[in-house]
Amino acid sequence: MLDKFFNPKSVAIVGATIKEGKVGRVIVENFKKRFKGKIYPVNPKYKEVLGLKCYPSVKDIPEPIDLVVIVVPAPVVPQVLRDAGEKGVKAAIIISGGFRETGTEEGKQLEDEIKRISMEYGIRIIGPNCLGIYDNWSGVDTFFLPDEKMMRPKKGYISFISQSGAFASALLDWMAYRNIGVSRAISYGNKIDVDDIDLIEYLREDEKTKLIIMYLEGLKPGRGRLFIDKARKVVEKKPIVIYKAGKTARGSMAAASHTAALAGNYQLYRAAIKQAGLIEASSFDEIMDLSKTLLTQPLMKGRRVYVVTDAGGVGVMLTDALASEGFELPRTPENLRSELKKVLPPHCIVENPIDLTGDADDERYITVLEKLLPRDDVDAVIVVALPQIPGIKGKLFEYLVEAKKKYNKPILIIIIGSKEAEKFKAYLEDKGIPVFESPERAARALKALYTYSIIRGVAQK
Amino acid sequence: MLDKFFNPKSVAIVGATIKEGKVGRVIVENFKKRFKGKIYPVNPKYKEVLGLKCYPSVKDIPEPIDLVVIVVPAPVVPQVLRDAGEKGVKAAIIISGGFRETGTEEGKQLEDEIKRISMEYGIRIIGPNCLGIYDNWSGVDTFFLPDEKMMRPKKGYISFISQSGAFASALLDWMAYRNIGVSRAISYGNKIDVDDIDLIEYLREDEKTKLIIMYLEGLKPGRGRLFIDKARKVVEKKPIVIYKAGKTARGSMAAASHTAALAGNYQLYRAAIKQAGLIEASSFDEIMDLSKTLLTQPLMKGRRVYVVTDAGGVGVMLTDALASEGFELPRTPENLRSELKKVLPPHCIVENPIDLTGDADDERYITVLEKLLPRDDVDAVIVVALPQIPGIKGKLFEYLVEAKKKYNKPILIIIIGSKEAEKFKAYLEDKGIPVFESPERAARALKALYTYSIIRGVAQK
Repeated sequence: MLDKFFNPKSVAIVGATIKEGKVGRVIVENFKKRFKGKIYPVNPKYKEVLGLKCYPSVKDIPEPIDLVVIVVPAPVVPQVLRDAGEKGVKAAIIISGGFRETGTEEGKQLEDEIKRISMEYGIRIIGPNCLGIYDNWSGVDTFFLPDEKMMRPKKGYISFISQSGAFASALLDWMAYRNIGVSRAISYGNKIDVDDIDLIEYLREDEKTKLIIMYLEGLKPGRGRLFIDKARKVVEKKPIVIYKAGKTARGSMAAASHTAALAGNYQLYRAAIKQAGLIEASSFDEIMDLSKTLLTQPLMKGRRVYVVTDAGGVGVMLTDALASEGFELPRTPENLRSELKKVLPPHCIVENPIDLTGDADDERYITVLEKLLPRDDVDAVIVVALPQIPGIKGKLFEYLVEAKKKYNKPILIIIIGSKEAEKFKAYLEDKGIPVFESPERAARALKALYTYSIIRGVAQK
Repeated sequence: MLDKFFNPKSVAIVGATIKEGKVGRVIVENFKKRFKGKIYPVNPKYKEVLGLKCYPSVKDIPEPIDLVVIVVPAPVVPQVLRDAGEKGVKAAIIISGGFRETGTEEGKQLEDEIKRISMEYGIRIIGPNCLGIYDNWSGVDTFFLPDEKMMRPKKGYISFISQSGAFASALLDWMAYRNIGVSRAISYGNKIDVDDIDLIEYLREDEKTKLIIMYLEGLKPGRGRLFIDKARKVVEKKPIVIYKAGKTARGSMAAASHTAALAGNYQLYRAAIKQAGLIEASSFDEIMDLSKTLLTQPLMKGRRVYVVTDAGGVGVMLTDALASEGFELPRTPENLRSELKKVLPPHCIVENPIDLTGDADDERYITVLEKLLPRDDVDAVIVVALPQIPGIKGKLFEYLVEAKKKYNKPILIIIIGSKEAEKFKAYLEDKGIPVFESPERAARALKALYTYSIIRGVAQK
């Protein structure tokens, strides 16, 4: 049903303009860059916009239109929407602001009017007062920021749904710079029609989406129960990482001024999030830490984690962090202990965390991991490989990419450092192995994976 | 007393060698690069090492020696130390391992022997089994890693003391890449003589140190009370940020295998940390977040924080985070409210968090900050400036650098994005204004500043 938003064959952009820097121009430019379908600028003032034939009204376009993008001033929106309705359009993104969010009676009335028109003609609406859709696969791009201001990320499998437009664009820009792939991003603004529930239902069936991120201030009133039911069905197929804003009383008040969202009682939301099987990110960092881990790692069968390190101190930090998250770090069992003693120099520590010490090299790591990864009593491995020591040249990381395929077990890496560290990190993350600087963040990400493994019935509680 | 370690006029490097990649060569190379004093390689096998005259023993050096760096195998260390004692040397860094940390009787006996020799001759010792000292001001550099493996940071005012050598080198490398200035770094290994207490006492008087970071697994037995007393005196002058490893039972066990440290009961440590007025970092990220904030920001008089944002959603996230840390976000008072209404477009939100919205520009921010910063009822300001919006061109950040000097109030910034964000971040941090991506991390850093302001008697509880 929402497919016309994400995969339209033809798009009308109402309010298209040739004026430098204006929203109505940036959107046409962005569509021209990446959209494969037909683009119809609409504006009675122009015959042509950026080389495309321009029409006075949607009704004047001679071809069928799948999606209308509306950037005209609020008072003009109802008429544009009616024209679209008569043309038979079934999907509209209303970028324009000036509705209920203004807090004025006029804004409220305008919003009610477009809601009525949408029902009358059966047009689904995203917005108003939003950035709309950035779709990396179809090229739909109503995020009205030029490439210099917002980098576009590479194609990938993370989709996100945001109640904050600015946050959505900042996150896209942030992810692009860090080479993280994105599928579809949606900023829905006042959500007078299409809301979180509709969107997760759509993304559930979307084969280009393997993980969903949600930034949520508040659900529409009365939609809580349905949200839980629908979300539960989604997480049977793919994880949802949610950041709930408006957790505190003071934060809820801020949310109310921001999107007029009823942020509601956070305790109720937490209960709902848990019941629905969503994974909650409690900080900005966690949104991406959890997502990159859930996206790339196989589910865990249990909570027994081994650590292999070249830095004893980081091994201790990580042990604390894992223990605090409820993981078990088993004492190295006797049979493994004697195997490791055979192959390691005597100054190495074979107890878990296994400390290969500062004279370790790639080969020493590989030897140990080859004994560790095949074992049934090892549920996940975290490798700490501080690259300051001379022995780490990179072969270890190539091995890990192969080992991930071969053993199908979660493998997380900790690397702290400078240029070389960044190089190894980029290589590993490109191959689907998440890298962390912080032991605490790695432990929290693994915890999210474990939680999701329980939700999916792979791990026992 | 410890000055000979950090500011020696002459250094003997015992175990110097010409063999590629060996510790005894890397150290000579590193001293040659940055150390301004005299360097005397010592090794009976060579007449010359890397162009420097080499001596068979410390005793053969014709000039007085302030510091001896020892990298010979453990069994030879006692004789080297005796030679140094007879020469009248008063400071030795023993890099060599092979002592108590091996868990062998032989190692323990060797360690006891060098302890006896040190007392007999009155030689202070750092180590054994350590990386020693990296001093950015004097050029003392026994961290035996080449520049390709560990970048050297620029000169600065953060010093750190680490029970983990690998962590110390990783942190130096990490800080160098992020353009964070470092004063002196010390890895003390088995700490048979000079320990945390001696070092913080020394750094207290050191005018090149304005903030101390400590990575601690455990204090030497019986030194707890003294540590609290001494640390308390230090924090009257400069903050200490401490990361305590070995917090959990499982982590303490790992610490015991790592440095034979008695990580002890974390609850006792926490109480001591609090009593001594140290600032505890509870994660890797926090170590640097807290440090960069405490290093650069003036103390806070109270806990009233204002937020100015161009992104409502991030304003909500930040409000939650600040409220969770116990800050007050006052409702905008009537006189300020009417002033703001006069200068802002009607769609902006004058309530705190003050939302300048997506059509904000540098000037709009500056106008608001000029009304906010001079007020007595504003204790700190966090500015959220997502640079995806077209209006942010950089003038705001230049203004903030001036405003920091003029108003002497804590100012923290949140920027999320790509290349442009990184550019603004680099500029601001270079000028002493800390930048964060994560609202939660900014709030925790401000909390540390507030805590330290209470410790220093500037803020009331």
